[in-house]
Amino acid sequence: MASFKRLPLNSTIRWLCSRYTTSVTVITRVERGSLACSGHIAQCRFVHSSGTGASQASPNATPQRLPFSRISPEDLTFFRQLLPGRAITDPDMLESCNVDWLKSVRGNSEVLLRPKTTDEVSQILRYCNERNLAVNPQGGNTGLVGGSVPVFDEIVLSTALMNQVLTFDSVSGILTCQAGCVLETLSQYLEERDFIMPLDLGAKGSCHIGGNVSTNAGGLRLLRYGSLRGTVLGLEAVLADGKVLNCLSTLRKDNTGYDLKQLFIGSEGTLGIITAVSILCPRKPKAVNVAFLGCSSFEALLETFRCCRGRLGEILSAFEFLDAACMNLLVKHLKLSNPITESPFYIVIETAGSDAAHDEEKLHNFLEEVMTSSLVTDGTVATEEAKIKALWSLRERITEALTHDGYTYKYDISLPVEKIYQLVTDMREHLGDRAKNVVGYGHVGDGNLHLNITSPSKDPSLLAAIEPYVYEWTSSCQGSISAEHGLGLKKRNYIYYSKSSEAVGLMGDIKAMLDPKGILNPYKTLPDDLHS
Amino acid sequence: MASFKRLPLNSTIRWLCSRYTTSVTVITRVERGSLACSGHIAQCRFVHSSGTGASQASPNATPQRLPFSRISPEDLTFFRQLLPGRAITDPDMLESCNVDWLKSVRGNSEVLLRPKTTDEVSQILRYCNERNLAVNPQGGNTGLVGGSVPVFDEIVLSTALMNQVLTFDSVSGILTCQAGCVLETLSQYLEERDFIMPLDLGAKGSCHIGGNVSTNAGGLRLLRYGSLRGTVLGLEAVLADGKVLNCLSTLRKDNTGYDLKQLFIGSEGTLGIITAVSILCPRKPKAVNVAFLGCSSFEALLETFRCCRGRLGEILSAFEFLDAACMNLLVKHLKLSNPITESPFYIVIETAGSDAAHDEEKLHNFLEEVMTSSLVTDGTVATEEAKIKALWSLRERITEALTHDGYTYKYDISLPVEKIYQLVTDMREHLGDRAKNVVGYGHVGDGNLHLNITSPSKDPSLLAAIEPYVYEWTSSCQGSISAEHGLGLKKRNYIYYSKSSEAVGLMGDIKAMLDPKGILNPYKTLPDDLHS
Ligand SMILES: Cc1cc2nc3c(=O)[nH]c(=O)nc-3n(C[C@H](O)[C@H](O)[C@H](O)COP(=O)(O)OP(=O)(O)OC[C@H]3O[C@@H](n4cnc5c(N)ncnc54)[C@H](O)[C@@H]3O)c2cc1C
Ligand SMILES: Cc1cc2nc3c(=O)[nH]c(=O)nc-3n(C[C@H](O)[C@H](O)[C@H](O)COP(=O)(O)OP(=O)(O)OC[C@H]3O[C@@H](n4cnc5c(N)ncnc54)[C@H](O)[C@@H]3O)c2cc1C
Repeated sequence: MASFKRLPLNSTIRWLCSRYTTSVTVITRVERGSLACSGHIAQCRFVHSSGTGASQASPNATPQRLPFSRISPEDLTFFRQLLPGRAITDPDMLESCNVDWLKSVRGNSEVLLRPKTTDEVSQILRYCNERNLAVNPQGGNTGLVGGSVPVFDEIVLSTALMNQVLTFDSVSGILTCQAGCVLETLSQYLEERDFIMPLDLGAKGSCHIGGNVSTNAGGLRLLRYGSLRGTVLGLEAVLADGKVLNCLSTLRKDNTGYDLKQLFIGSEGTLGIITAVSILCPRKPKAVNVAFLGCSSFEALLETFRCCRGRLGEILSAFEFLDAACMNLLVKHLKLSNPITESPFYIVIETAGSDAAHDEEKLHNFLEEVMTSSLVTDGTVATEEAKIKALWSLRERITEALTHDGYTYKYDISLPVEKIYQLVTDMREHLGDRAKNVVGYGHVGDGNLHLNITSPSKDPSLLAAIEPYVYEWTSSCQGSISAEHGLGLKKRNYIYYSKSSEAVGLMGDIKAMLDPKGILNPYKTLPDDLHS
Repeated sequence: MASFKRLPLNSTIRWLCSRYTTSVTVITRVERGSLACSGHIAQCRFVHSSGTGASQASPNATPQRLPFSRISPEDLTFFRQLLPGRAITDPDMLESCNVDWLKSVRGNSEVLLRPKTTDEVSQILRYCNERNLAVNPQGGNTGLVGGSVPVFDEIVLSTALMNQVLTFDSVSGILTCQAGCVLETLSQYLEERDFIMPLDLGAKGSCHIGGNVSTNAGGLRLLRYGSLRGTVLGLEAVLADGKVLNCLSTLRKDNTGYDLKQLFIGSEGTLGIITAVSILCPRKPKAVNVAFLGCSSFEALLETFRCCRGRLGEILSAFEFLDAACMNLLVKHLKLSNPITESPFYIVIETAGSDAAHDEEKLHNFLEEVMTSSLVTDGTVATEEAKIKALWSLRERITEALTHDGYTYKYDISLPVEKIYQLVTDMREHLGDRAKNVVGYGHVGDGNLHLNITSPSKDPSLLAAIEPYVYEWTSSCQGSISAEHGLGLKKRNYIYYSKSSEAVGLMGDIKAMLDPKGILNPYKTLPDDLHS
């Protein structure tokens, strides 16, 4: 049988892990035996309590276990017959699927199922639905909001063995594959054929395409290729009752009825299990350039962005920023050197195109314009791979630098682009010297701010000054409190900061329609008050 | 009060009208008075019967009127109070909203409501839902599948007076506007600000952005900017019971719960009335080039497409084709001249980019490659606007040429790109000399074929040879029987050729959840058997 080793991940994940590990709070509670229960063990829950300690009243609190059945010996017999050698109960082997990547959340599932086919997934769900057994869909388990691991004893249904490419059409660039294909494996498969995946993210060595679609993952190429809602052309999903919904279209255009696949994109496994995906893949760009620039104000940075879109247009593939406070941390903690003169703001611009000479020329014309008009005060450009990587690392290693600065409070916020830095400025003023550092960086092109606040150690009074201030601020600008990671377990109760109660109510109706017993990924995405 | 003149449309619409008019069959039926009815007149229905004559058994048949209430004097009093001067009952003024653009479908509504605000739409729907009055949402009334006009006496709710731009952000390119803004007006608004709409279509002078979103319109820019499912960032919709659902996000990224707006995109007014839209707009390209090329086989054409994507990459904005039979019609009926030597297939390629010299160079390198390798046998390129228009007209005027060739059976099919011409070849063989001409053209880049079959006059036996053959063929390749126009009234019962019964069943559940009384655009999009 296949071992459970994860594919190697790039260092980003390790930084995140170490950061989050410092903030784990252990909450142990012992469930009383119930009549339906046979042989279950005490339930443990670890929750990232944001330093306040979780109480039932707080939005971060552990939910109540809902009255699902507990696994019986007969259930195990059924699963073992259906999936010979692939219904895992060995506690050592269960460990890794019970804990999330950040080691911030821990469940206590006693069964891990590893189907290979859609039909097996269908049989599992039909059985679980009849038996009222809760199920936690799991892809690469790289999710950052506690959605990918059980909260109590939910059965883990992993897509790890559903890893076959089904078809690839090199005329249209449409790939169809099972949901458990690892993103990096798909990228390699495509690059050999002169295509790329329309999404890329730090977790690519582990995350599954089914997980990406279920979380509507954003990542590094969204500015250029758009979201999965446009690039995913079709999918196959198994509903809670085992019914297979085949929406695995490989067409760019299809207006026959409602677009059901959209229900499953970004619903974090709460409405169905995605078993296959078809996705539109762009051609591999022939040339890539990166520029690292300095700006004297955020207004100048926004004006540079405007100019950049005009000048670089179709070849612009990333427009990222960091502030001087980030640069200080990079220099101080990681000994990186600032390649340009000190500035209040820095920009990383990437171009990707089909003609190296053209792209360089466009980039240089753009740079001339922004430097002549003093929007940009200094800059450097890289065209070779090693130098490109070095410039990118100034953006990519900020998370690592932060972990060296102390305890970090992290927020991943979507805002109208002209407001993204105002939140950092206001937060700095609001916190005064209570915080060690308040830094901002992120994807200008996507209006996605990463706001990070450091403190020498965990500091409940600091947290109380940050939250709900940060959510209220975001909400007052019609921003989103989760730009790309979803809500999962951790943020489920914050949904009202970004969605109206009518919208949340309708989400609850959709959940009830598709999964009337609520067996699919309970306690996730939707707020607790929908159950009551 | 504003008059009801439509904005001038380009000639395409007039051709379509004249073509369809020839195929209209009149079916008159007299509804018996019912107890609820007060003062209603005999109902007339005209339906495009595809030449077979509509019978209740055929998928084209007129549906049965569902037991909605009929408009009473009290209802009129309510509407007149709510919308002073904007609750129209004058029969002359009602005429244009009862007939579709193609003059192929006619309803018999006695009331046209023209709200200006979301709140008015909400009050109308709350009232209609309580009274069980059916409502037909209408935008520019340019829809091609009979979805935009009433079937019986449904109230027409027009968005024509909801035409305000709400906000535009010139950094992000995000536009927010009311649903009744005319597409061309928005285009002009944006072009003045150096942006463009992400969609463009022949009906732009009349169609509303709300209608575009409700039909998930494709159009001429889809290859480049993707579908509305990616570019529409948010919308506001009023549900059947009058509840306002505010999903009017202006964020590129937002993963807080299910993406409810997707339910309303492409659902043709059956799930809610869209009252406002926010949409991501691209920068206006600085340079446009068009090439017109000849290919000796469809395989060579596909290989040219592959090469084109590689060479032109990010600047490719259209890749269209027509066959020799189309060219013959253009030459014969419209006296257009073929700018290159005769070929079995012709391609129209458009580039749009930010640097004219670069784009031309890329195009010329591409052309050198495909001509050296004999994929392309002859070609011409235009960079000036007049010449660009002349080349485009060879693609755009095919519909007009067809109307001069006799009675035309038209199909708008989505297929895996490598199969799009096989359907034309097979159909030719299948029909033998029963057809006058079988021609194919369309959007290679989108896998969207326009298959057209002409005959000296309407020919039921020819139709019987075409249908259901064309649908079965499409279905056997997992194609779509409606690439971009939707199902509306005309194609509602053909949905099963492209969607599984599980999928259609789930669509019915969604309809029942959002509109339990079925008052919103009844008889449209979903098949009749869902009612029974
Ligand atoms: C280092 C690192 C970098 C990251 N960078 C980004 C980034 O740039 N952008 C971004 O958006 N996210 C990012 N993430 C978050 C995470 O990688 C993404 O959310 C990813 O898409 C999750 O995929 P997965 O296969 O690991 O899913 P999991 O973590 O296993 O699951 C995530 C959620 O989806 C559900 N799910 C998984 N598979 C299925 C299925 N087949 N059917 C139904 N539901 C399913 C789970 O139940 C869970 O709710 C990053 C994470 C890490 C650790
Ligand atoms: C000459 C011509 C060229 C065309 N070219 C294309 C093309 O290239 N690509 C393409 O996809 N289509 C094309 N069409 C079809 C048509 O223009 C599109 O479908 C268009 O998007 C319809 O917009 P509209 O405002 O006219 O909607 P309408 O025709 O008024 O309505 C269409 C449907 O949407 C519903 N609806 C309208 N507004 C709302 C609203 N605010 N809320 C809820 N429901 C609503 C109606 O009930 C109806 O079911 C073309 C049509 C013509 C006449």
